[in-house]
Amino acid sequence: MTPRTDDVLRAARAAGADGAVLTHPAHLRWAAGFTGSSGVLVVSAGAAHFVTDGRYDAQARAEVAGAEIHVPGYRLFEHVAENGLLGDARRVAVASSHTTLASFNRLVGLLPDVELIPLDDFLDAEIAVKTEEEIDRLRAAQALTCEVLESVLPMIVAGVAESDVAAELVYHHLKRGAERMSFEPIVASGPRGALPHARAGERRLERGDMVVIDVGGVLDGYSADLTRTVAVGEPGAEARRVYDVVLQAQRAGKAALTPGGAGRAADAAAREVIEAAGYGEAFTHSLGHGIGLETHEWPRLSRQADDVVPAGAAVTVEPGIYLKGRFGVRIEDVVVVRAGGAETLTPMGTDLVVL
Amino acid sequence: MTPRTDDVLRAARAAGADGAVLTHPAHLRWAAGFTGSSGVLVVSAGAAHFVTDGRYDAQARAEVAGAEIHVPGYRLFEHVAENGLLGDARRVAVASSHTTLASFNRLVGLLPDVELIPLDDFLDAEIAVKTEEEIDRLRAAQALTCEVLESVLPMIVAGVAESDVAAELVYHHLKRGAERMSFEPIVASGPRGALPHARAGERRLERGDMVVIDVGGVLDGYSADLTRTVAVGEPGAEARRVYDVVLQAQRAGKAALTPGGAGRAADAAAREVIEAAGYGEAFTHSLGHGIGLETHEWPRLSRQADDVVPAGAAVTVEPGIYLKGRFGVRIEDVVVVRAGGAETLTPMGTDLVVL
Repeated sequence: MTPRTDDVLRAARAAGADGAVLTHPAHLRWAAGFTGSSGVLVVSAGAAHFVTDGRYDAQARAEVAGAEIHVPGYRLFEHVAENGLLGDARRVAVASSHTTLASFNRLVGLLPDVELIPLDDFLDAEIAVKTEEEIDRLRAAQALTCEVLESVLPMIVAGVAESDVAAELVYHHLKRGAERMSFEPIVASGPRGALPHARAGERRLERGDMVVIDVGGVLDGYSADLTRTVAVGEPGAEARRVYDVVLQAQRAGKAALTPGGAGRAADAAAREVIEAAGYGEAFTHSLGHGIGLETHEWPRLSRQADDVVPAGAAVTVEPGIYLKGRFGVRIEDVVVVRAGGAETLTPMGTDLVVL
Repeated sequence: MTPRTDDVLRAARAAGADGAVLTHPAHLRWAAGFTGSSGVLVVSAGAAHFVTDGRYDAQARAEVAGAEIHVPGYRLFEHVAENGLLGDARRVAVASSHTTLASFNRLVGLLPDVELIPLDDFLDAEIAVKTEEEIDRLRAAQALTCEVLESVLPMIVAGVAESDVAAELVYHHLKRGAERMSFEPIVASGPRGALPHARAGERRLERGDMVVIDVGGVLDGYSADLTRTVAVGEPGAEARRVYDVVLQAQRAGKAALTPGGAGRAADAAAREVIEAAGYGEAFTHSLGHGIGLETHEWPRLSRQADDVVPAGAAVTVEPGIYLKGRFGVRIEDVVVVRAGGAETLTPMGTDLVVL
């Protein structure tokens, strides 16, 4: 990968800082290519240093680009301070949404001459804009998850437990090369599909159930996130109608995504379709979120957020309708926001599958 | 469960505070029984309040004990501040190792009349001491993971990829009722067993390999953590000798665990055995760590830490020897530290298994 330490410095400067200290694993991977779980990246004018512990010595030397590598003992912050790795920087950005208060306080104690600047959204906008290489990886991750879901569909029949479907989804991801899951799969059937935070439980599928399946694997560091709602046997007229409303809402949400547009506008476009059909109260969450090295990234497509969606952002579009005690429907794809419109990365249709 | 909000207040008072604000999911579960991922527990003299968002309304009402339940919109900290849920408390403890700087700064802004006291080790010592009910859950989780490993042993043969073994370990955990994995399994064979941070890779097992398998599932909220090193065919004289040294070191480490003893002393007892055998440099990590609702808890059994192990603590004991380019051996059990000695919770032998 091309190192992005210059981008880090540029983002720090835009916030009035002249350096940055990063520790969040996704930041270390994005900025310097490091895939391990523990390290510190220090960036100031003209110099970048990457500090990690002995467990990651060989890995750092193989992976990290654009920074001088240091492998002291376990006291990484102390190494940064004692060796003056911040150079002349005196106002140093810290990603406060990804730094514990304990770590921050240790840094404050070790760097008495430096003013640490907490930035809640540091690098969010930079990370949101994907390169074509990153988009290819997101596409490959999404394709793997679709392939796995297709292969598991035949076992989604009456009598099978939700947790057994989830176990198969995980197993086939790992067998086909996923590093890990993006999150624990949701398999929520019948009335459980209407619970806003269901995972997979012991409930056994019944004929006529709608089954919400929300699943994703991680491939080459990038997360997939896919939801399909399938029917076990004929689901009935209202379920079909609700499915169609959610599908139309998803199309409207995708169509409203434009480079530089408000995430709120895409949410509103989808929500309008659901409200017009009389289900407004039943769409209880926001339309989507950024996705990449992390499953949940900036920007949000939400009524509650002012985020603006940049060109090249990858986001989920996932409207849903949840009818308490009855069933739920959600349909989710990952799309890239481009000048010509949102490009869907999910190679799987959205017509209702009746099993 | 019996609510532990009184214990929270007692711990806060011991640190000179008169209240506490908790947000870390493991803290919410330990103190109030809540198993969701987002909430705030506020404790002050005579009152405890639990605040969560609409997704967790029913779940909080079903699970939370010992605190008044509030379900406002999504602005949980704002609800705490606007409704004076801290009562008369003016010095309020915050668990700084489990709170982001961004969250802390939001709290500071919302509570101008309150002094927030960051405590890096808040509740660590309280959480370390397990009840007999918790020990039973740890025992059950450990038994499940042993059962899974036993069932997967027959497929550990030459020609199989590490990642395929890992996929089977995950699959059988989920099929047998684990909520999730404690961590991604490590399956590190031959020379990869000597890498201090190997996961499961594409390497295929060969005859004569030592294979380090480090795995655990979560059952009823409690984590298992088990390592066994097995041989694929006859491993040779040095591997057998190293295995025996690690096993003797583990026994020495367990024997040195006493209520109120230093974690450092148990580490030293195990390390001495390995040093005496000439492998001192090859034991590159510490002996173990606390375990419970989280896979890694306080106390550490480490040369680098001053932690004292209380009676009733559950800890891992996991010495290892790693010979670069050749092989690694690690043997890990979970034990409870009792007056009569360390009780091993792992129902699986430690003799070398040759497959």
